[in-house]
Amino acid sequence: MLAIVAALSLNNLEAAMEELNCAIKDLGARGIQVFTNVNGRPLDDPQFEPLFEAMAAYDLPIWMHPARTADTSDYESEPQSRFELWWCFGWPYDTSIAMARLVFSGLFERYPSIKILTHHLGGMIPYFDERIGAGLAVLGSRTTDEDYSEVLSSLKRPHLEYFKMFFGDTAMFGGVIGLKSGVEFFGCDHVVFSTDAPFAPIEKTIAALEQLELTDADKKQIYRRNAEKLMNISFD
Amino acid sequence: MLAIVAALSLNNLEAAMEELNCAIKDLGARGIQVFTNVNGRPLDDPQFEPLFEAMAAYDLPIWMHPARTADTSDYESEPQSRFELWWCFGWPYDTSIAMARLVFSGLFERYPSIKILTHHLGGMIPYFDERIGAGLAVLGSRTTDEDYSEVLSSLKRPHLEYFKMFFGDTAMFGGVIGLKSGVEFFGCDHVVFSTDAPFAPIEKTIAALEQLELTDADKKQIYRRNAEKLMNISFD
Repeated sequence: MLAIVAALSLNNLEAAMEELNCAIKDLGARGIQVFTNVNGRPLDDPQFEPLFEAMAAYDLPIWMHPARTADTSDYESEPQSRFELWWCFGWPYDTSIAMARLVFSGLFERYPSIKILTHHLGGMIPYFDERIGAGLAVLGSRTTDEDYSEVLSSLKRPHLEYFKMFFGDTAMFGGVIGLKSGVEFFGCDHVVFSTDAPFAPIEKTIAALEQLELTDADKKQIYRRNAEKLMNISFD
Repeated sequence: MLAIVAALSLNNLEAAMEELNCAIKDLGARGIQVFTNVNGRPLDDPQFEPLFEAMAAYDLPIWMHPARTADTSDYESEPQSRFELWWCFGWPYDTSIAMARLVFSGLFERYPSIKILTHHLGGMIPYFDERIGAGLAVLGSRTTDEDYSEVLSSLKRPHLEYFKMFFGDTAMFGGVIGLKSGVEFFGCDHVVFSTDAPFAPIEKTIAALEQLELTDADKKQIYRRNAEKLMNISFD
């Protein structure tokens, strides 16, 4: 079985919601894709709430792809990001920020079963799990321009746990170190096979996964069962 | 034995070089600390070459600390980075970019024995090793505003290898996943014990290291021998 996912432009939310409903109800799409920002606005902007509400109700996944271009410069003295670093490191950074924003805005409190799939195995999250867990535990206890004193207390569970509610894909260019870390952080039930092909090789991603010493059941989850569960379909 | 390291301001390089020589020759400093940018300029700007040349000649290490503040916003629609994410993810991002810039500018070709110590275990590098290795192998083969066709060919070795010439410290807030990945990427001879105390707990970092199933010799390298070798001193 093949499944389609609708690429949804969010610049006009009312029209986007119509398109979303049409794609899923009329065209049979099994999920949508959005980007980590909408014309420079974060996804936790309240205006995008209907989108998350609808996808939680459909029980279908949101693919979240990073969006920055070379125009996000890395140094004030330079007009653009050089050496293609904007996608190499900028994309996982954008993904990490978007994930944190969705967590701190309480998205998973409002929609505990919402399915959000992050590209590049959750960006920086697995490598910096305790920088988030122990590090950001200070949120609200230090002087800043904004009062964060109720951010963490508004969440029912320790904030790091919500980061594990995202799904991560295996599009890591075949890197074994990151893949191992990501699987350890998210668990085999929250990692979905993906390759970034044709940009990255399929074979190398499979070879990396095979190096992880997972059980056949674990591998089957990653290769297909998680995708099936996310999209409520069967590839059999 | 105690050792001091000189925090060097680079806004005036001529004065900074005087200070550097004074700190090392007169005050006995065993290294210097710099930030990942100087008034918005990257460290691979040719004006900073004398600094790297001098430190390579002294055979003493450069500690490289990230530098961004909340003023680097994550979204065009917002004036500042929110929820303290500028340090949580922005600092490792800045470190990663600075590392890549030093590699692509050929620093390790010019000074093969230069010692640069990166904070937070090399930022994003270990998690995204093949995003750098296989991913950035396209550098120069696609149309961009700048001609990168001679960047990779100007390096004698595959570009990912140079990233392993940096040292990483263990200041990871006690996270085991990242620590394991970083040690695997850099190797036990390129990881130096560090904690970010008082911001992060010392005990938790030690506990994380003890979970890594390293040999006593490996651990001794990380806890002290690498620091001794970097600074050419003995703590005995």
